[in-house]
Amino acid sequence: MDSDYGVPRELSEVQKKRALYQPEVPPCLQGTTVRVEYGDAAIAADPAGAHVISQAFPHTYGQPLAHFLRKTAVVPDAKVISEHPAVRVGIVFCGRQSPGGHNVVWGLYEAIKAHNQSSKLVGFLGGSDGLLAQKTLEITDEVLSSYKNQGGYDMLGRTKDQIRTKEQVNGAMASCQALKLDALVIIGGVTSNTDAAQLAETFAEAKCATKVVGVPVTLNGDLKNQFVETTVGFDTICKVNSQLISNVCTDALSAEKYYYFIRLMGRKASHVALECTLQSHPNMVILGEEVAASKLTIFDITKQICDAVQARAEKGRSLSLVYDMVEHHLTLLSFKWPFVGVLLILFTDKNHGVILIPEGLVESIPELYALLQEIHGLHGRGVSAENISSQLSPWASALFEFLPPFIRKQLLLHPESDDSAQLSQIETEKLLAQLVETEINRRLKEGTYKGKKFNAICHFFGYQARGALPSKFDCDYAYVLGHVCYHIIAAGLNGYMATVTNLKSPVNKWRCGAAPISSMMTVKRWSRGPSATQIGKPAVHMASVDLKGKAYELLRQSSSSFLLEDIYRNPGPLQFEGPGADSKPISLCVEDQDYMGRIKKLQEYLEKVKSIVKPGCSQDVLKAALSAMASVTETLNIMTSSSTGQTPL
Amino acid sequence: MDSDYGVPRELSEVQKKRALYQPEVPPCLQGTTVRVEYGDAAIAADPAGAHVISQAFPHTYGQPLAHFLRKTAVVPDAKVISEHPAVRVGIVFCGRQSPGGHNVVWGLYEAIKAHNQSSKLVGFLGGSDGLLAQKTLEITDEVLSSYKNQGGYDMLGRTKDQIRTKEQVNGAMASCQALKLDALVIIGGVTSNTDAAQLAETFAEAKCATKVVGVPVTLNGDLKNQFVETTVGFDTICKVNSQLISNVCTDALSAEKYYYFIRLMGRKASHVALECTLQSHPNMVILGEEVAASKLTIFDITKQICDAVQARAEKGRSLSLVYDMVEHHLTLLSFKWPFVGVLLILFTDKNHGVILIPEGLVESIPELYALLQEIHGLHGRGVSAENISSQLSPWASALFEFLPPFIRKQLLLHPESDDSAQLSQIETEKLLAQLVETEINRRLKEGTYKGKKFNAICHFFGYQARGALPSKFDCDYAYVLGHVCYHIIAAGLNGYMATVTNLKSPVNKWRCGAAPISSMMTVKRWSRGPSATQIGKPAVHMASVDLKGKAYELLRQSSSSFLLEDIYRNPGPLQFEGPGADSKPISLCVEDQDYMGRIKKLQEYLEKVKSIVKPGCSQDVLKAALSAMASVTETLNIMTSSSTGQTPL
Repeated sequence: MDSDYGVPRELSEVQKKRALYQPEVPPCLQGTTVRVEYGDAAIAADPAGAHVISQAFPHTYGQPLAHFLRKTAVVPDAKVISEHPAVRVGIVFCGRQSPGGHNVVWGLYEAIKAHNQSSKLVGFLGGSDGLLAQKTLEITDEVLSSYKNQGGYDMLGRTKDQIRTKEQVNGAMASCQALKLDALVIIGGVTSNTDAAQLAETFAEAKCATKVVGVPVTLNGDLKNQFVETTVGFDTICKVNSQLISNVCTDALSAEKYYYFIRLMGRKASHVALECTLQSHPNMVILGEEVAASKLTIFDITKQICDAVQARAEKGRSLSLVYDMVEHHLTLLSFKWPFVGVLLILFTDKNHGVILIPEGLVESIPELYALLQEIHGLHGRGVSAENISSQLSPWASALFEFLPPFIRKQLLLHPESDDSAQLSQIETEKLLAQLVETEINRRLKEGTYKGKKFNAICHFFGYQARGALPSKFDCDYAYVLGHVCYHIIAAGLNGYMATVTNLKSPVNKWRCGAAPISSMMTVKRWSRGPSATQIGKPAVHMASVDLKGKAYELLRQSSSSFLLEDIYRNPGPLQFEGPGADSKPISLCVEDQDYMGRIKKLQEYLEKVKSIVKPGCSQDVLKAALSAMASVTETLNIMTSSSTGQTPL
Repeated sequence: MDSDYGVPRELSEVQKKRALYQPEVPPCLQGTTVRVEYGDAAIAADPAGAHVISQAFPHTYGQPLAHFLRKTAVVPDAKVISEHPAVRVGIVFCGRQSPGGHNVVWGLYEAIKAHNQSSKLVGFLGGSDGLLAQKTLEITDEVLSSYKNQGGYDMLGRTKDQIRTKEQVNGAMASCQALKLDALVIIGGVTSNTDAAQLAETFAEAKCATKVVGVPVTLNGDLKNQFVETTVGFDTICKVNSQLISNVCTDALSAEKYYYFIRLMGRKASHVALECTLQSHPNMVILGEEVAASKLTIFDITKQICDAVQARAEKGRSLSLVYDMVEHHLTLLSFKWPFVGVLLILFTDKNHGVILIPEGLVESIPELYALLQEIHGLHGRGVSAENISSQLSPWASALFEFLPPFIRKQLLLHPESDDSAQLSQIETEKLLAQLVETEINRRLKEGTYKGKKFNAICHFFGYQARGALPSKFDCDYAYVLGHVCYHIIAAGLNGYMATVTNLKSPVNKWRCGAAPISSMMTVKRWSRGPSATQIGKPAVHMASVDLKGKAYELLRQSSSSFLLEDIYRNPGPLQFEGPGADSKPISLCVEDQDYMGRIKKLQEYLEKVKSIVKPGCSQDVLKAALSAMASVTETLNIMTSSSTGQTPL
């Protein structure tokens, strides 16, 4: 099997040109000497969970943040790492392939070799299976040559997603020891980084010398927290999907007879769907987070879509209906819609449209989620798929029987290893299209809908984007993260994730650092169904779309014009040169993140106060400082104690 | 409704840059004066059909070819068109949207205005419906501004595909007369160009002054003959699809657990599937033309795929099986495969793969075609879909009952206006995936298949490519065709199609001309089922993939390595700058077409003979010429009389 991996291969013209692209690194990582500044000990964002986390991770929780600075940076306590003994590092792809993954390997390789030519980087073949079986491939220039800036994980492969059971963890430790690894780098999303943190803790406990480092790589964009602004692959996936969505919008507008229902890969959270909507302006998007917040049933959603279809099909007289619907959509965040006048001019009858559906939607719809939980519970008790329907509760059974056969079959699939449904296999878009068609036909008969025949075409966009050539942004981000991994290793840190922040700025403004993975964890306190067994276990959980965030606000501001005016926008196919080549996710650029920058800024202020208010300063200065600091402290106290301390599911 | 069309709209950065792109025109069309050279009268390629065609098109069959040359070209009989009175021209999008269509309008507009500022170009809104209803939009710089080099047909829209019934033809004539059009330009594929020829004939017969011009625009690439090398949109569609197929290949290779079955839009012929295979090297493609030539049943195809899956899953010992299978695949063209040795080194067990399926495949499989014909016959007799299954012949009924429910429902759909099945709606890829899964599971139980669990994921790639931003090639080709349309109109030609040939060379080598559409027609002599009513009617028929052509040969040469070695190739997303931006379809470049160039070259030779062998030349020269020409004539006579004179379906 090994002979397939890392074999140089024939590339197309575009691939060849891409293979020659050399990503920049920010100034702090240029040259061979880097200064490390340690911040305060990092804590979990959720104070109520902190205690549980610190107990579960006695060796690795509460470690300080690390900032990597240029050699010449004037920071009093920063330490220059000048010794670079040869190291042996292993790297493994965990979880689903995400564009840019290869560049993490490349960046790490470059940094390792730049600091000591005798250092070695080995890749595990076939993901976690290869890690346990000690199947490795030494990374060399030749191996990398045809994988630089290329998509997929095919240089090394990947299989199972998890390294979680005692057996797996011990197997991984045995491999690391047998191969005498100084460090193990795990490339993956929330699940794999949780595993990385657990490995780090276990290794530390067992005094295994291998340090574990995580890297945030997942197309879902759902590994997102105060330290991590976005993940490698998200930009590419959104660009490729947005291109296709835009093409479909143009198609809809040209033919004027189809409603396209497009389901987007991206797991439970709706980040991909949100970003794609901001990129290509389809008529509607049903965000799982909105549905969950408003507790919309499948019938509510169907009605919403039908109202939209009806409103689009009718002229002036339907305006009040449109208004009601849009208003309903917006009352969620108590926002009133003042542009009815504009609509009168722009709105003409339309019998086409494009509706986006995140693959996680099915788990956001309360009654379907409850049904899935019952099904998964029965699976967990060993009931076979064909017998499940007869053992459902009367309520769940009624819902189940109502659903069309194709979706019943899909709901009965065995859940994934993390207890979630097999989202990629459940065709929610077809379910909705069918329900909408039935309802529109009913309204047509009844006479309330007077538009043309409703024609739906369904698509699932996912697999065709996952192996794409990574965008420039993902190439750069991944490559820099690879470099950061090396510096984490050189600093001897364990249980950290490589971070690059201030990403919306140009590369020369990017900040490089590392944060303990355990400080990104939260503790879930309630759950229903079989996943209840996981309760109380700290983990890096996926981040939902923030309904109070700026990206969502941007969507909200435009949703009525998206719905009615067909202001479709085509970002075009992913470009590597010319306009668009340097673009970044809109949701990344509008969010004002730079948490790591602010943490540093705060430190500077505190230092400044200290340096001004030294023993011997005037009484007035001291009084002023005390009074100001008292009020600051009080405000912060109030703010932090008012947090509920509970992280809902 | 009208207010939606031609409205300037907001463009993305990439779209804006594209809108500024100015396609070249070849030297012959530069400047305002063009010389027209008329060739000999064009005849239909099929001599047996010629008589039928000439009877059906008494006014428009047998007209000469036209070549457009630069003003300074030294050609004795060429006529310079120096008068350019103001003209009124109408243009209409017919049939499915194809990337580049907008540029035909732009090119025509530029040429019209360059020759007389008082000329007018009007677009019909909503396709043929707009033509009949006289709904027009005057094309202006402002209207064009945000549609230059952009995809879709949304500047003008399109609806119904045909202008065929007496009512429709008369309606179109009434519109042309009411709007005082000097010419009507029809943008479309085989069906629409057949309609264009019919309109031209009817207009000529009725002494209507409007000349009709056709333009070859269809994503299917199936309007292809001695005069037409490829169609506008084909390149873009293949590029967008190839990108996605390649991404899926990378995905398959990264995850190593899925077989992807991808159906490609492209109607009955397999041009899109062939080109995409040459671009991205998936493991297998099932060309409809191969299936039809070998009369493979759905079970044969299933077996072929299963053998491939099995061979890929096994190592060394399965080589003889592989060899057999590949040999079977190749015996079609009596080709033996000498590379077994190579295989031993490269071949390792694989549990993933990518298989392409043209949407027309279902009509190429003999028993499914027969079933469809029965179903369509019953539709034609007014039997409703729910009653059809009970009225099928015993044989057809048995097949029908064997098929899974989803495909039964799709086969029962009402046929399209040209009597073909609704190919875009029939999920042949799912049918094959299901049959293959069943068979592989059987072999697994039996012990003949020893690979991993077979997992299929199905995709239909079509709608997501149709609205794409056109490639540079399609932008240029369409723009030049638009210019050619003007010169056809200025020359007063009727029933012609605009042609640009020698397309594989750079734009400055392109040849511009026009050929009577009727000379591209053929006459079908047999058929089964309801379409038998069309028999004997000349039409521009879609061209199948030529199994003796160079593109197919190229595929054949590589098919064994594609199948077993995973030499996937990613042409990358469609680029507008840098490498790949100027690429053209592989199938266009390998075919040695340039028919128009050769026709001209032949004329030159004949002229040369005439000029050498003038009265007064020596007896020897005359004798030599006579003897040489006698043998040439004889050879050609034998060649043309040996043609069967029949065009099979």
